Amino acid sequence: MATAANSVPHPTLVKGLHNRWHPDIPAVATVKPGEVFKIECVDWTGAQIGNNDNSDDIKNVDLTKIHNLSGPIAVEGAEPGDCLVVDILDVTPFEKMPWGYTGIFELENGGGLFAREFNSKAAKAIWDFKGIYATSRHIPGVRFAGVSHPGLIGTAPSAELLATWNKREGELIAEHVNSVPPVAFPPEPIGAYVGQELSEEVKTKIGKEGARTIPGREHGGNCDVRELFRGSRCYFPVFVKGANLSVGDLHFSQGDGEMTFCGAIEMAGIITFSTSIIKGGVEKFALKQPIFLPSPIDPLYSSKLVFEGISVDYHGDGKQYNMDATVAYKQAALNAVAYLEKVCTFTLFNSNLLMSAAPVESHVGAIVDSPNACVTLALPLGIFEHDILPTEAGFTKKDFGQCAIRSDGVV
Amino acid sequence: MATAANSVPHPTLVKGLHNRWHPDIPAVATVKPGEVFKIECVDWTGAQIGNNDNSDDIKNVDLTKIHNLSGPIAVEGAEPGDCLVVDILDVTPFEKMPWGYTGIFELENGGGLFAREFNSKAAKAIWDFKGIYATSRHIPGVRFAGVSHPGLIGTAPSAELLATWNKREGELIAEHVNSVPPVAFPPEPIGAYVGQELSEEVKTKIGKEGARTIPGREHGGNCDVRELFRGSRCYFPVFVKGANLSVGDLHFSQGDGEMTFCGAIEMAGIITFSTSIIKGGVEKFALKQPIFLPSPIDPLYSSKLVFEGISVDYHGDGKQYNMDATVAYKQAALNAVAYLEKVCTFTLFNSNLLMSAAPVESHVGAIVDSPNACVTLALPLGIFEHDILPTEAGFTKKDFGQCAIRSDGVV
Amino acid sequence: MATAANSVPHPTLVKGLHNRWHPDIPAVATVKPGEVFKIECVDWTGAQIGNNDNSDDIKNVDLTKIHNLSGPIAVEGAEPGDCLVVDILDVTPFEKMPWGYTGIFELENGGGLFAREFNSKAAKAIWDFKGIYATSRHIPGVRFAGVSHPGLIGTAPSAELLATWNKREGELIAEHVNSVPPVAFPPEPIGAYVGQELSEEVKTKIGKEGARTIPGREHGGNCDVRELFRGSRCYFPVFVKGANLSVGDLHFSQGDGEMTFCGAIEMAGIITFSTSIIKGGVEKFALKQPIFLPSPIDPLYSSKLVFEGISVDYHGDGKQYNMDATVAYKQAALNAVAYLEKVCTFTLFNSNLLMSAAPVESHVGAIVDSPNACVTLALPLGIFEHDILPTEAGFTKKDFGQCAIRSDGVV
Amino acid sequence: MATAANSVPHPTLVKGLHNRWHPDIPAVATVKPGEVFKIECVDWTGAQIGNNDNSDDIKNVDLTKIHNLSGPIAVEGAEPGDCLVVDILDVTPFEKMPWGYTGIFELENGGGLFAREFNSKAAKAIWDFKGIYATSRHIPGVRFAGVSHPGLIGTAPSAELLATWNKREGELIAEHVNSVPPVAFPPEPIGAYVGQELSEEVKTKIGKEGARTIPGREHGGNCDVRELFRGSRCYFPVFVKGANLSVGDLHFSQGDGEMTFCGAIEMAGIITFSTSIIKGGVEKFALKQPIFLPSPIDPLYSSKLVFEGISVDYHGDGKQYNMDATVAYKQAALNAVAYLEKVCTFTLFNSNLLMSAAPVESHVGAIVDSPNACVTLALPLGIFEHDILPTEAGFTKKDFGQCAIRSDGVV
Repeated sequence: MATAANSVPHPTLVKGLHNRWHPDIPAVATVKPGEVFKIECVDWTGAQIGNNDNSDDIKNVDLTKIHNLSGPIAVEGAEPGDCLVVDILDVTPFEKMPWGYTGIFELENGGGLFAREFNSKAAKAIWDFKGIYATSRHIPGVRFAGVSHPGLIGTAPSAELLATWNKREGELIAEHVNSVPPVAFPPEPIGAYVGQELSEEVKTKIGKEGARTIPGREHGGNCDVRELFRGSRCYFPVFVKGANLSVGDLHFSQGDGEMTFCGAIEMAGIITFSTSIIKGGVEKFALKQPIFLPSPIDPLYSSKLVFEGISVDYHGDGKQYNMDATVAYKQAALNAVAYLEKVCTFTLFNSNLLMSAAPVESHVGAIVDSPNACVTLALPLGIFEHDILPTEAGFTKKDFGQCAIRSDGVV
Repeated sequence: MATAANSVPHPTLVKGLHNRWHPDIPAVATVKPGEVFKIECVDWTGAQIGNNDNSDDIKNVDLTKIHNLSGPIAVEGAEPGDCLVVDILDVTPFEKMPWGYTGIFELENGGGLFAREFNSKAAKAIWDFKGIYATSRHIPGVRFAGVSHPGLIGTAPSAELLATWNKREGELIAEHVNSVPPVAFPPEPIGAYVGQELSEEVKTKIGKEGARTIPGREHGGNCDVRELFRGSRCYFPVFVKGANLSVGDLHFSQGDGEMTFCGAIEMAGIITFSTSIIKGGVEKFALKQPIFLPSPIDPLYSSKLVFEGISVDYHGDGKQYNMDATVAYKQAALNAVAYLEKVCTFTLFNSNLLMSAAPVESHVGAIVDSPNACVTLALPLGIFEHDILPTEAGFTKKDFGQCAIRSDGVV
Repeated sequence: MATAANSVPHPTLVKGLHNRWHPDIPAVATVKPGEVFKIECVDWTGAQIGNNDNSDDIKNVDLTKIHNLSGPIAVEGAEPGDCLVVDILDVTPFEKMPWGYTGIFELENGGGLFAREFNSKAAKAIWDFKGIYATSRHIPGVRFAGVSHPGLIGTAPSAELLATWNKREGELIAEHVNSVPPVAFPPEPIGAYVGQELSEEVKTKIGKEGARTIPGREHGGNCDVRELFRGSRCYFPVFVKGANLSVGDLHFSQGDGEMTFCGAIEMAGIITFSTSIIKGGVEKFALKQPIFLPSPIDPLYSSKLVFEGISVDYHGDGKQYNMDATVAYKQAALNAVAYLEKVCTFTLFNSNLLMSAAPVESHVGAIVDSPNACVTLALPLGIFEHDILPTEAGFTKKDFGQCAIRSDGVV
Repeated sequence: MATAANSVPHPTLVKGLHNRWHPDIPAVATVKPGEVFKIECVDWTGAQIGNNDNSDDIKNVDLTKIHNLSGPIAVEGAEPGDCLVVDILDVTPFEKMPWGYTGIFELENGGGLFAREFNSKAAKAIWDFKGIYATSRHIPGVRFAGVSHPGLIGTAPSAELLATWNKREGELIAEHVNSVPPVAFPPEPIGAYVGQELSEEVKTKIGKEGARTIPGREHGGNCDVRELFRGSRCYFPVFVKGANLSVGDLHFSQGDGEMTFCGAIEMAGIITFSTSIIKGGVEKFALKQPIFLPSPIDPLYSSKLVFEGISVDYHGDGKQYNMDATVAYKQAALNAVAYLEKVCTFTLFNSNLLMSAAPVESHVGAIVDSPNACVTLALPLGIFEHDILPTEAGFTKKDFGQCAIRSDGVV
């Protein structure tokens, strides 16, 4: 095994767990530029979901506690205005936990892109990790290589940036007071934690002001961009001394859009980083939000079946929207769901879970042809064990079963 | 040259030119399933734009005449409810016209995604075709392989489908009566033509009812999806006997989003098709809108620099939108524009034209993390003659000039 | 069609046809660096093969006349020791001749990689070009995108280089005097031509000294490298003033190895070039033989079934060779042939023709593990209409027929 | 971390270490079809090489002990004539040993492709693993994603097959008795081991008959095919009851050809498998040697600079060979070496080590154009930190240093 002499493993840094973004959360560890280090991450819910065959844990999930973030990690020499270069060198599950999950939340507890359309009830699929591949006993007939990535990664905001976030999101909430699910989430002291000993005064301040972790923002955050798979290099704006990088919500795989919200293959695991600093990079690169270079090992599912959608809700009430790419994405996704249901006999739950979790691609087609934005969604053919192409004869139908549902049987 | 004996070239079908969608426009030619045939297409404006160095023709373009479509072509045996399989076998410019153009329209005449933000003035770039590549004397420093495709392709609507379109778009227009540019375009007899001899009664009906060609719809139409490049196989729903396929708006290349509206490399040329029919395919495949299989020869620009955007207008007034992927796309694009301007000294015009025309990719990242949809936009590194990566030292700046502008010098 | 005004098509240069390499063949046209120009090429045999359904023309082919090369083209300013940069901008068949052929030669007339093993009789397949795709009535069940390229392209040799070739190949011939097929081809005045008016003295000299065109050499020549597909940029050493580039033997497609010798899809057509010069490039780049940058539009047949071969002739007499990659390539190819025969019911002829013509990849695995070199050969799955993967149940067998054979029925 | 409850890690099977192929070596563990399991592997030399800065360990390596193989593993139900399907689910280094090495052996002790040409002296490079990437302090200026794979994997031979190997290789050795390095390696009792308690009689038999592990053969073995990277599915012929799969010689990365013999990035680590059986597969698939499906995560280094080589030893004595792909591969490699030396100032050692270890591709171009086989070798541009393309101005030269050499300074 080559001699063990002189083998120096990369260090695993002590993790701090926090669930709010705030400049006053101190770094729990400091690294030097160039150093390779590892961070352990719990899954985003903090171990609320089990490797079993019903979805009661999904139904009852407590979302005030999310997301569980590891960090912050300070980088020596980073100052506001710099660009923090982060190499995502690897993302793997824990060796002892080779599994993850994808869930559909209830409309009243978490929601998801189609929560209202489908009056969603809790459902889930457990995925088994077999090396680079995932399969699921709850969604038979598919297997795919993971594009493992952090769903959530970002630098700490400055006080000014945090204030901007709270102001603009507060205004949006004020415009939609009774929305279900809510349009955004204001600071909430209940459930807030910082993962280290801090004075009551500071903790209270963080609870009252700290930004919730659900949306992505200018610092990165919960962008859920599957293109950040292991091997990527990211350029983050730095807002506070040390940059204070936090990370969590590891995904074994995810489709573009992550439509069910708990839609990636959520997992616990280890992420390996190295960093460097480009002084004054925010100004140099006009950096309003992170930019990145994708990894060279993006799985090559080059054959795919592509669905279009436009900004008309023709799967719903037929309403014409004005250049709305979100509506167009939904139609493309619903076209794919209908296809899988009709052609391959997948249930609505199963196709939703699959399309959230598998390496599905969604492109913005054209966004200038009034009034219809056009968005496409592509199913990679290579993930199916059977040929799903449109043919005169059609797919050989078989029973692909139903994913894990509530123990009371409500679907 | 192999003996010329027994060489049978593919026929070029007589073209009919029309610019409205209506079931009463008769087919101008009929093909059999399996036959390979060619269609000649003028550019979408009908030769209003010239190969020269000012943008006055863009400023004065007459948009009542667009789009110039070739067809309709009937396919023997196709009936409503069938699926028409169309192989886009090739898309090439005319040998005698190895050039195309990309334009930015004025806010008051055509607009575009950023027309309001930039109070757009007319600008354009002429692209020279050199085999599979395009270069531009107006945008020096770049060269890329074309992903040639039809911007506009679709089957004829039935009377019922046409009525649905007119109703829903009429309602949208009614809600936004004074919008500049307008949110949608109602039927308009002025400028309508059908490309063949028809009775006055029929022509009047078509002028009064015929759908305008700007948006993509359930039949395909102007989806401007660059994934339809030559080599693709498309599955269209059939709404009228014969299917009545029409095509136009050929693009030598286009970026995802086609942001300047006249944003692809617009060209005149020839498209080669073959077709087949799957009986009852609409029902079999739950076909609400075309689906397709992309070509195997998608240019491999695997190295790219990716920009994120979220649904906050931080390049404008800072407003928080609610899960709006269109706003997120715009921020990602503006981040890329700012980068090219800052790092590479591209002008706003040049970077806009380039990103509209080049094989830029835009993915829907996540569309479930309230309130921020996240969209990415990727610049392929291989299209630039210089290294554009973020580095400490930065790009060696040089003067990339300015594209063609108005002869009165207004920009 | 965008206005035709100011449209300047790329010029097609007058072709000169020659079939020997010699420094005294004058250029038939001169181009400037940067100019885009086209060259028309006959097929490599000079129209000896017809679009019909027997292989008599293959059986009787006259190989003293080959290859038919277009050129030479001089580039202004190129001098010995420079590097000539050649952009292969496009390669297309003639519009009026949308077909090509692949042949298996007789052992006594042309041979091929397996001519001796199979005691080859003449066979051929005609391929129909449908846009970017080829299909064959003689090899049903497959369709693939062409990787069109010139099989033969090179600069003219200097007198010294030519003398080196003739000396070393003469020595090889002397060692294998009675070999069938011959191991190499010495200069041969019979059948030599130069495509232009020259003095008898010069023509006699060229006939006596001119190198035959079959092998690739230091100047390029008949390398039959499919990686030179349209869109590639090549760097050639220059040996004579003007560089004197010649080209021919266009291929619509070819597999790595081109095993049947007439193994690509041979076609007549048009190649589009532009050139530039790097002064002193031979010394600068240590240029012993051309180097090149492949095109970005290599067809993406990423799923493939790979066969191994080692340097043991286990398909023949079982002999152990010493690190012989040629033997290893042959075993890998024979393994694939056996697979197609057993699993898919392809005939020996059909699988040979298919593997010569389709985008088959062959890699040198390892060439250091004595005594066995290992070479792989990969069949792209996407070219077959049926699933050819190994499964318990196996492929649904059907009759794929037989390619065109001799009219006397001998196979 | 998702609840730890119900998490079942994949088992790591007890390893047996052997270094000969023989049917009488009993399986050390048995698995069921479908089971996921892990195998630990030492590096191929058995820890003879250290993580340090001189090459004395390479100079003095004891090659009688190689290769160290883990196994054999029996698969329940496998019988001679079956096809054993092996999924290579993952290949990773040990977490505690994030490094590997590439070496150049001395001509008299191990050799390598260019051992004679260069009168090779020992040299080596240590590679540090940083997640999916490798870098080397001994070869600065490059970084690349690993295509990790087993260099050596195979099923146990039957007594008949073993006899065939020994006979044919013995004949080759007899023809080249004094060759340095030797052309092949006969059975050798000295140094043979079987990794378990066996009777003296059986051990003696294995020592006297057991095939050495250097070459790949019909059962797989040391094929050193980099296309077997993690995620591949392989189909092996079964020759003995249980199939008795053995594996070793893990590579973090390797270039096509593995030119320095110890040319991959050699590492110790863990390989994850699952298996299944196709009854009678040898006959069904005409299986003479393994076939396989590559992984979808092949690193996408699509931009590359390609070198050609032909079967003339123009880097040596200029001799003309007859269709010899091995000679052609060597010229292509030497062209690349010369280029890196001239253009980028890499030393001969460094370019050799780099090209052995990095994801270099080598294709068989054409193998039918007498007398010159043509082979290409492609350097991926994305692995270099600097632009290595040929330009007028050339590469900015810098000192890339020298790899680890002998402590006596001899190079």
